[in-house]
Amino acid sequence: MKIALIGFGAVGQGLAEILRDKGAELEAYHGFRGEIVAVATRSRGTLYHPDGLDAALLLDAIGQGHLAHYPDVYGLTRDWDAATIARRCNAGVLVEASPSNLSSGQPALDYCYTAFESGKDVVLANKGPLVAAGESLRARARQTGRRLLFEATVMAGTPSLRLALDALAGCKITAARGILNGTTNYILTQMESGQSYEDALAQAQAAGYAEADPSADVEGWDAAAKLIILAGALFGSAPALRDLDVQGITALTAADIQAARAAGERWKLIAQITPEGGVVRPTRVPLNDPLAAVSGATNAITYTTDLLGEVTLVGAGAGRLSTGFALLSDLLALHRQGGA
Amino acid sequence: MKIALIGFGAVGQGLAEILRDKGAELEAYHGFRGEIVAVATRSRGTLYHPDGLDAALLLDAIGQGHLAHYPDVYGLTRDWDAATIARRCNAGVLVEASPSNLSSGQPALDYCYTAFESGKDVVLANKGPLVAAGESLRARARQTGRRLLFEATVMAGTPSLRLALDALAGCKITAARGILNGTTNYILTQMESGQSYEDALAQAQAAGYAEADPSADVEGWDAAAKLIILAGALFGSAPALRDLDVQGITALTAADIQAARAAGERWKLIAQITPEGGVVRPTRVPLNDPLAAVSGATNAITYTTDLLGEVTLVGAGAGRLSTGFALLSDLLALHRQGGA
Repeated sequence: MKIALIGFGAVGQGLAEILRDKGAELEAYHGFRGEIVAVATRSRGTLYHPDGLDAALLLDAIGQGHLAHYPDVYGLTRDWDAATIARRCNAGVLVEASPSNLSSGQPALDYCYTAFESGKDVVLANKGPLVAAGESLRARARQTGRRLLFEATVMAGTPSLRLALDALAGCKITAARGILNGTTNYILTQMESGQSYEDALAQAQAAGYAEADPSADVEGWDAAAKLIILAGALFGSAPALRDLDVQGITALTAADIQAARAAGERWKLIAQITPEGGVVRPTRVPLNDPLAAVSGATNAITYTTDLLGEVTLVGAGAGRLSTGFALLSDLLALHRQGGA
Repeated sequence: MKIALIGFGAVGQGLAEILRDKGAELEAYHGFRGEIVAVATRSRGTLYHPDGLDAALLLDAIGQGHLAHYPDVYGLTRDWDAATIARRCNAGVLVEASPSNLSSGQPALDYCYTAFESGKDVVLANKGPLVAAGESLRARARQTGRRLLFEATVMAGTPSLRLALDALAGCKITAARGILNGTTNYILTQMESGQSYEDALAQAQAAGYAEADPSADVEGWDAAAKLIILAGALFGSAPALRDLDVQGITALTAADIQAARAAGERWKLIAQITPEGGVVRPTRVPLNDPLAAVSGATNAITYTTDLLGEVTLVGAGAGRLSTGFALLSDLLALHRQGGA
């Protein structure tokens, strides 16, 4: 399977690392041979070779700061931009792993359309295209007969979508409710051990969980974006981001946290979606709710189903290898279905 | 898909109920049409009709106590025993849902062999064949080119096996650890609210969670059997039941429970399996372990993986519809793969 990769940050590098380290195992157990033929970054160069790039050399080059450090080999192209790669490279799958723009979805959205039109399936780690234009994106995939997978966008490698759509196939899912943002859960966990919101946020930033501008996380928009993606996947249509009822954790005080603790409860930023709409809101959950035990940067999701009642999945919601695995998992699914 | 059903207790009835109530939905969304052609019980009659039995009428008949109440229709056979059904009926799949015999696996084991040899795939809710002769059973499936699925045997409909084998495909699973017996977890949860072991057991029996002879549950053998099944599925080979280190909950006192509680911990009957072996043992787990929040008759399993760290699945581990769904889920998997 020939793969074109847009974006080569932690997530793209995670995939390259897995292909480098587990290539033989993937071929032996799954008959899968994934080969990166193109990599496009915004400011660190692009590469295309129709016969494949070497994952170890790609990681070495980006480790030195720029794809210019990838060795010259016959047939290598260094001057195609991402749009040209999406259109003209010989990959069967475009993997979009550049940073999410939740309002326009661009430029990733156009790359997806281009990929479909030039006969490529699309695997997303980037939430933007699904949140900004999920319906149009799904329609374009159908019209062009291509496939669109996006496990990485909800809980990274913890297979929230594959559980819902494959393992629970035959059940009707009526609601999804969970802890979908690791940064805020890390902050809330730290606050339970007595820290103020400000100190916990600073610590999350120091630990690399929160960005310099943490607003998308702490104001609830990252979790809300994931609800939009879940709604599209579970219910076939999704509300707009602006139609969700979204509240972050910025107003929670140490006193709020302690009051919940005294009552045998915990504050969690709970995101919930049903076919009727979605809510993101700090919520006190009792200790016997499986979501109460989810601490630190871990994520969790509970599906409400007709035949099984509630089914909960807990696991890492971020991380280089975890998100890289989510991409691999989608690639393996395309491989199993054949044709890519 | 034509289905022969051995055993028509709660589990088999759960499957019949789902096929009766969700037939149209399953056909619309999954292109799946499941038809029960044969039902065999030990003491409540057997039925076979090559053109299919009506699920609603089957449920009515068994509700009246015996399959003799199923109406006479042209082509109906009432005198085939289970072995004859396994060999001679025209089903593509044999579903074995009679009570488990963990030491010999019989008579279910022979029905499985017969089914394979007569060209049928096998779906198990019965743990016996896998625990008593898992290796031989898997070998016979391979030799005859038939398929063997058994989601129902570990956590009923909560898809512990499908998660591990499909959704986590590409990860290496190095250990599984969980709460695999709902009866003991119910008793431990009751004891936390102050009941003695004896009272909690009596209440579990009254609520239908524990059998009159509760030894398989409370002495840990049910959880151990599930470890054997997990080992075969995850690692390709399994120890014998007698080689596991198994301890139940019968020695736990109210004082033990309260001591854990005072230390911010909870007693859980934890079952763990690795390629090196398996252990079932009452264990004090800290409250921030996802397994600590699993209360009542709920089950949970945590997989340790190379790429994702720990992934935990929580859900119902028993129940008519839940276990019926597990069977449906295996049937849908066979349907997706084609040929049944």
